Amino acid sequence: MKLKMMYAFLNTDITLIEKELEQTVHTDETLITDASLHLLQAGGKRIRPVFVLLAAKFGHYNIDQIKHVAVALELIHMASLVHDDVIDDADKRRGKPTIKAKWDNRIAMYTGDYIFARALEVMSEVKDVEAHKILSNTMVELTLGEIEQIKDKYNLNQNLRVYLRRIKRKTALLIAASCQLGAIAAGAPEDIHKRLFWFGYYVGMSFQITDDILDFISSEEQLGKPVGSDLLQGNITLPVLYAIENAEFRDKVEQLFERGYEQELINEIISDIKSSNAIERSFEMSDRYLQKAMSILEELPPNKAKKTLHQIAKYIGKRKF
Amino acid sequence: MKLKMMYAFLNTDITLIEKELEQTVHTDETLITDASLHLLQAGGKRIRPVFVLLAAKFGHYNIDQIKHVAVALELIHMASLVHDDVIDDADKRRGKPTIKAKWDNRIAMYTGDYIFARALEVMSEVKDVEAHKILSNTMVELTLGEIEQIKDKYNLNQNLRVYLRRIKRKTALLIAASCQLGAIAAGAPEDIHKRLFWFGYYVGMSFQITDDILDFISSEEQLGKPVGSDLLQGNITLPVLYAIENAEFRDKVEQLFERGYEQELINEIISDIKSSNAIERSFEMSDRYLQKAMSILEELPPNKAKKTLHQIAKYIGKRKF
Repeated sequence: MKLKMMYAFLNTDITLIEKELEQTVHTDETLITDASLHLLQAGGKRIRPVFVLLAAKFGHYNIDQIKHVAVALELIHMASLVHDDVIDDADKRRGKPTIKAKWDNRIAMYTGDYIFARALEVMSEVKDVEAHKILSNTMVELTLGEIEQIKDKYNLNQNLRVYLRRIKRKTALLIAASCQLGAIAAGAPEDIHKRLFWFGYYVGMSFQITDDILDFISSEEQLGKPVGSDLLQGNITLPVLYAIENAEFRDKVEQLFERGYEQELINEIISDIKSSNAIERSFEMSDRYLQKAMSILEELPPNKAKKTLHQIAKYIGKRKF
Repeated sequence: MKLKMMYAFLNTDITLIEKELEQTVHTDETLITDASLHLLQAGGKRIRPVFVLLAAKFGHYNIDQIKHVAVALELIHMASLVHDDVIDDADKRRGKPTIKAKWDNRIAMYTGDYIFARALEVMSEVKDVEAHKILSNTMVELTLGEIEQIKDKYNLNQNLRVYLRRIKRKTALLIAASCQLGAIAAGAPEDIHKRLFWFGYYVGMSFQITDDILDFISSEEQLGKPVGSDLLQGNITLPVLYAIENAEFRDKVEQLFERGYEQELINEIISDIKSSNAIERSFEMSDRYLQKAMSILEELPPNKAKKTLHQIAKYIGKRKF
């Protein structure tokens, strides 16, 4: 089943959120509206809003309250992507030129800042004090994750713990916050929204590991950017961490980092990773997180949202793009 | 009288805020702590925290509540400076190398993001919903001001209205918010905190215009950066807008923008501005805003804070560095 089919029963509300996203970034400053819409209209899975809505089903679901959280979280995610592309010097995202490529780094930096500020404006409609604490903590962690990513670029001496902490900060916590804040905005009790936090956290870890695997095993067409982009940008992901246990392979990566872009060497590295057990071991790690997510889910009361979260989690762990 | 003497009676609380600022930016990620402390310890007038504290004197002053607003606003100001220096490609601020110069643009971008996120974390201690709305609106305006600044760089065809809107967004609204939020955090009634908003707004406009004047008439030693830095970075400020009414002078500025850094031409331009009436007219504009600020102040109940705000406003309009 396709991802979008799983939450087809939320379509009316997702369409509403899509509209609100566009309205929110709109301003009379055309440059910034254009840059924001450029990113927004490139699509994306909108997985954070979907998690917000599904989590809200465990409370008193009222779209007029919940939409603020859904819009804010997607915007924060978007803002972080814009700044990410500056750091990674990335020219393509979702098959379209990035803001930094189409305009420049300065515009990208402030477009990110602007989208970020808009997110907070939307979020200020949420009255729950705890929600604001959770969101701001998540944002602090997110920026620390970004800084770690810069610091650990091209560093082959990082260990698994460093990698896991980085993807926790960069990805998992925002998905965890989406689940928890959706529940909080719907007035769900503490034991429910705390469980949803952990569900989101484990799914987020699995999601990012799968993402890091796909960077090697998927196609440029499906990725919307060249295969192996992470490594070319110096980001050491789980498959690489496993593969460099082999000294010969490690040498090749060191060569790549020294000599820079060289298509033949890149192809060799990608093919080496694919034929090693690094991909399999990475999938195993992703699965372990997924299993944890499923166990937490078991503890939640039965409803349609629970079933959908189960399907989505399963999909996320197994997806091919 | 020196600025710091005017609010000497707040010294205990200002020292507390200074300590909280340092504690807030601290993290186990040494790179980011270092970069943040580097900026923090370069000093600055801490004018926003001072306005927060003074405005809070019009309500029920409780430093344990108000400090969150004071710390958050200074951090937001700092974060915007860090991103500003990336855009302006500035190497010096307050006589010390900027973060982008000492580290690099990427570190500067995320240090800004990090400080911003920390500000929100601190602000989440404030329970008042209106306060969050005001702050997030201010941040949206701030980023729009930054974008306008990029867009209008090197553009000699901008008019006074464009300049005033830009400094409103970039400077005045954050000072206005400092005054208003200080009062709100202290539970001051609406008619008081709205007046304080307008007081801060007018003072902020005057403050920025004076800043823009000082960039030409002060010394490198006092500015902590070269004289004429604004113009060299392509930022068209009020003295320039007035001075380019003279066609011959306008030609020189166009030459500067075309030919780039040329010390002789820069010296000539600075000397031309100083000997024209542009500085005097700019001071007149600054004074007009200051008078408006003073009128608003008249409408506030008499107390020590009111007297101090009057002194500070007067100082800000007349300061020489």
